[in-house]
Amino acid sequence: MRLDETASGVFVIAPTPFRENRALALDDVPRMVDFFLARDVQGLTILGMMGEAAKLTEQEALQVTRAVLSATGGKVPVIVGVPAASFAAMQWLAAAAMDAGAAGLMVAPAPSLRSDEAVLGHFATVAEVLGDVPVVLQDYPQGTGVQLAPALIRRIIEATPSCVMLKHEDWPGLDKLSWLRAASTHEGMRRISILTGNGGLFLPDELRRGADGAMTGFAFPEMMRDVVRAHRAGDPQRAADVFDAYLPLVRYEQQPGVGLAVRKHILAQRGAISSPTQRRPAAQLGPRDLEDVAFLVARQERRLVMLGSQG
Amino acid sequence: MRLDETASGVFVIAPTPFRENRALALDDVPRMVDFFLARDVQGLTILGMMGEAAKLTEQEALQVTRAVLSATGGKVPVIVGVPAASFAAMQWLAAAAMDAGAAGLMVAPAPSLRSDEAVLGHFATVAEVLGDVPVVLQDYPQGTGVQLAPALIRRIIEATPSCVMLKHEDWPGLDKLSWLRAASTHEGMRRISILTGNGGLFLPDELRRGADGAMTGFAFPEMMRDVVRAHRAGDPQRAADVFDAYLPLVRYEQQPGVGLAVRKHILAQRGAISSPTQRRPAAQLGPRDLEDVAFLVARQERRLVMLGSQG
Amino acid sequence: MRLDETASGVFVIAPTPFRENRALALDDVPRMVDFFLARDVQGLTILGMMGEAAKLTEQEALQVTRAVLSATGGKVPVIVGVPAASFAAMQWLAAAAMDAGAAGLMVAPAPSLRSDEAVLGHFATVAEVLGDVPVVLQDYPQGTGVQLAPALIRRIIEATPSCVMLKHEDWPGLDKLSWLRAASTHEGMRRISILTGNGGLFLPDELRRGADGAMTGFAFPEMMRDVVRAHRAGDPQRAADVFDAYLPLVRYEQQPGVGLAVRKHILAQRGAISSPTQRRPAAQLGPRDLEDVAFLVARQERRLVMLGSQG
Amino acid sequence: MRLDETASGVFVIAPTPFRENRALALDDVPRMVDFFLARDVQGLTILGMMGEAAKLTEQEALQVTRAVLSATGGKVPVIVGVPAASFAAMQWLAAAAMDAGAAGLMVAPAPSLRSDEAVLGHFATVAEVLGDVPVVLQDYPQGTGVQLAPALIRRIIEATPSCVMLKHEDWPGLDKLSWLRAASTHEGMRRISILTGNGGLFLPDELRRGADGAMTGFAFPEMMRDVVRAHRAGDPQRAADVFDAYLPLVRYEQQPGVGLAVRKHILAQRGAISSPTQRRPAAQLGPRDLEDVAFLVARQERRLVMLGSQG
Repeated sequence: MRLDETASGVFVIAPTPFRENRALALDDVPRMVDFFLARDVQGLTILGMMGEAAKLTEQEALQVTRAVLSATGGKVPVIVGVPAASFAAMQWLAAAAMDAGAAGLMVAPAPSLRSDEAVLGHFATVAEVLGDVPVVLQDYPQGTGVQLAPALIRRIIEATPSCVMLKHEDWPGLDKLSWLRAASTHEGMRRISILTGNGGLFLPDELRRGADGAMTGFAFPEMMRDVVRAHRAGDPQRAADVFDAYLPLVRYEQQPGVGLAVRKHILAQRGAISSPTQRRPAAQLGPRDLEDVAFLVARQERRLVMLGSQG
Repeated sequence: MRLDETASGVFVIAPTPFRENRALALDDVPRMVDFFLARDVQGLTILGMMGEAAKLTEQEALQVTRAVLSATGGKVPVIVGVPAASFAAMQWLAAAAMDAGAAGLMVAPAPSLRSDEAVLGHFATVAEVLGDVPVVLQDYPQGTGVQLAPALIRRIIEATPSCVMLKHEDWPGLDKLSWLRAASTHEGMRRISILTGNGGLFLPDELRRGADGAMTGFAFPEMMRDVVRAHRAGDPQRAADVFDAYLPLVRYEQQPGVGLAVRKHILAQRGAISSPTQRRPAAQLGPRDLEDVAFLVARQERRLVMLGSQG
Repeated sequence: MRLDETASGVFVIAPTPFRENRALALDDVPRMVDFFLARDVQGLTILGMMGEAAKLTEQEALQVTRAVLSATGGKVPVIVGVPAASFAAMQWLAAAAMDAGAAGLMVAPAPSLRSDEAVLGHFATVAEVLGDVPVVLQDYPQGTGVQLAPALIRRIIEATPSCVMLKHEDWPGLDKLSWLRAASTHEGMRRISILTGNGGLFLPDELRRGADGAMTGFAFPEMMRDVVRAHRAGDPQRAADVFDAYLPLVRYEQQPGVGLAVRKHILAQRGAISSPTQRRPAAQLGPRDLEDVAFLVARQERRLVMLGSQG
Repeated sequence: MRLDETASGVFVIAPTPFRENRALALDDVPRMVDFFLARDVQGLTILGMMGEAAKLTEQEALQVTRAVLSATGGKVPVIVGVPAASFAAMQWLAAAAMDAGAAGLMVAPAPSLRSDEAVLGHFATVAEVLGDVPVVLQDYPQGTGVQLAPALIRRIIEATPSCVMLKHEDWPGLDKLSWLRAASTHEGMRRISILTGNGGLFLPDELRRGADGAMTGFAFPEMMRDVVRAHRAGDPQRAADVFDAYLPLVRYEQQPGVGLAVRKHILAQRGAISSPTQRRPAAQLGPRDLEDVAFLVARQERRLVMLGSQG
């Protein structure tokens, strides 16, 4: 299965499961994959920032990759995030992941890049290092510190034929989305898939601007599924109704630093993983945080019932 | 009127009104102040980041200060933000603002501070420069790049007797709030007022953690008023219901960079200011953005009607 | 006197003199100007970063400007640094300084700029705000955090006809210098003056790459004068001999944070200013630092005597 | 051989040798080690920033470690830099390196740390992760973005009994050095070894402040040897004479970004490694740069002859 520019829908960002002693919990992987597949996702993305990729050794990263690919068994494509700051590490994991059956690789700009010239040079080397494999460009300025103006993204895409998808996670990014879609529609830019991140915090707005779906890890992936469905059914009010029901929790889970702790706590509660453990450094949830989550989840459930939505 | 540690409720962050040619629109100030007073705010804060303070000359900053103080006529206290990076500019505006009748001054750490020692030294100089006037400490890491751990905030407060309020705008900051409140309650730390920012995005959660109110500039200040009222009435579900009705727009207005354009657009639509003009550099709203805002405001109104709330 | 692209030689960065109580020492200005003129500088630059411009109120900045212009009496051109982060403050000081007789204005990119597109937009606004006055583009990534690739500098120069000089202070920047000179010589780029900074730490190397001189504030401006003279006389070994004699102190004065304290200490010792006082925040020299300086100055004097150079 | 707090002299930062095709050149390691040992260094440090550690896969890092340990054969201690941003990667390489015979490990603060509390928490985890092995604390704010005030360094040292050495590379850092030495001498702080970096740019000044030697990779390690010797012989003028002879090149090699290219070029010319190749991203030297180096090396040789020093 090879990722291409027609990809759409929900690619869920999967966490990396750990045991309470912080060892890899590889035996959690099958049930985590089942949890996501049961919510009808179109694909999985692993080893992203929320996948704690930077906290794994290279061998562990490969173990996780193989475990996820084995558990999905080809049912949906799996995208693997590769390190941005080291071409050697990027090349090693990329080769191993594609060999193991990955559908494509996700690459962000290296944090040190500070000019358009440097960014273009970086992606020229990326293309050379990765060879002919499908690439997802991750545009996440809040995480990388690198700003990619729309015209620069266009130049990267045009210089990198293997780039088939943009993970759009700029903030604010709605105008960037509109610009890129207009460039495809009216100005001959090659159209690629655009999936959006930010925990889903702007998903309905992004779909109205032409996004093809979501690539994010909110702990209720059915939100992304149902918002995308309502949007495709031509019912923006319904999409917004569903979204608004989840929004208080989406927002709470999107707190920088604490967000992943919230997400893993809920995923553990829902049975997707056996423990909410993160590797260090990691924020811990206290009793007050857990009360907040319980309060928000209870309200969310009531609201979904009123909407006639199945959670 | 002198700000003290008992301050609570809603201190609205006021924008600075400009004409379409980007000149100061001082004659907009009275109606802007009336707009806020009509929504029962407990105070005003001017010349914050969302007040485009950094885009004014020093004389213009003083003109705005005098105009706002004149328009409020002592009905509510006015807090004036002073520059953090220059003690000379800080001292000049501070003296002029207090002379004109300000209730207190808001000060942030200078963006260059990179150690606890440097932060404490900075605030020691601030205290010396400002003398005996009420100070609001602004904790806004996303804007300043300076992280203030809770124990460091405590040290600043204890070393600065004139500090009567914290504008809490860390993100995530709920645990910092809980920590500070516990330190006042159980560990003998002097209790000061804590008002919260971030466009109100976490207001009900923050109130549950012990915040005394909000200091932010969301274009519907009645949201902050009604959430605070419901919270004080002991009805967290009602507070959350009101909040959730506004949340899709709160979130949209909180987009970095674009947020102020959205806020000024709505305030102009509501008649609080005559033009949404910002000084450069400034994001501009396009037709698609305006459609988004209209869509969200219409949904918000319907939802408020269902809640039996008066907008 | 109007700065143009033929400017060359030594433009010294002048400090701002303060009294021991940190008030402006405007009556120091005439002797400071005389000190620099006696060392045959071709121009003065005031209100740069080493001029503590960010620590002055706007009125003080204008006072300094007028005092320096009055003291130079038109004998050499004076360039005035204007604030980069606020177009209103930039416009106000620019107009007042040109009105008072400045030869040109120095402008840096605003620290927040993070893409080529943003940089070009910034300088388009600068050109509009400043109108038809000679502009010096300051390229100082270590101070501003903004990287300007050579091709981007070319685009700024070509889009800004009023830009007549580059203050080149990138580090490393020798290849940038070579690139820009080759672009003027072989590719039709408009040739502008290039003066170099960094306290003179690379001056002979920069001259060999085509720089027109130095714009920096090393406390022995005769170093820059004599190195430029030897270079122009076609004697790079002599230029290097003179430079090497001063290099241990150049290096010591170039320490970030401490450098200005060293510079003002020496300038006060040499009688150029009456006190080494800086405004806060400022590094202070302790006894060990003063010993270092004395040690280095004594060695420098001996070495200059051996070279037959007059200090 | 286990590093302890009595270490002094010159620990040279070794580069990682690559072939022209950017593959590891492990067979270069023996002659590189011989080159350093022939210059009487007291130790080697590998996998630092100038060792391009971030451009190696984990397996390659271990290969380099083993090759260097094998080549030194226990003649001098070898310190191995371990990754700061990932505790898993740190632990893996640390265990493997100590197992292979390393004398100690060098650890820097993770780049994301932004408060004293966070820094102390980080090093508490480091101590737990590394266990009882000798640790070198690397204080390099220009590389990491983390400022460690002297009092914070003291707290780290006191909380980390295994910390036996500080690699001091703050800039400016002379006062920090004096502070730390005074704290050991007069205030009961445990005395540890302090070696200094920055390419040797402040070496004689640092020795006068109490540094125990140098840990840096200037391409003429005999400079560090001879400066340390003259200093220990109580002859600061001689130390300065030797230093000044090398200073123009030290300065040239210290240019950020370009410096490593200069260093590897000279080391290749001197036969220490077979190729100056760096892995990407890397600055390349052009003909003008090579001319500069030749000019500076020729002058350096003449000056050393005049000094009666053997290069």
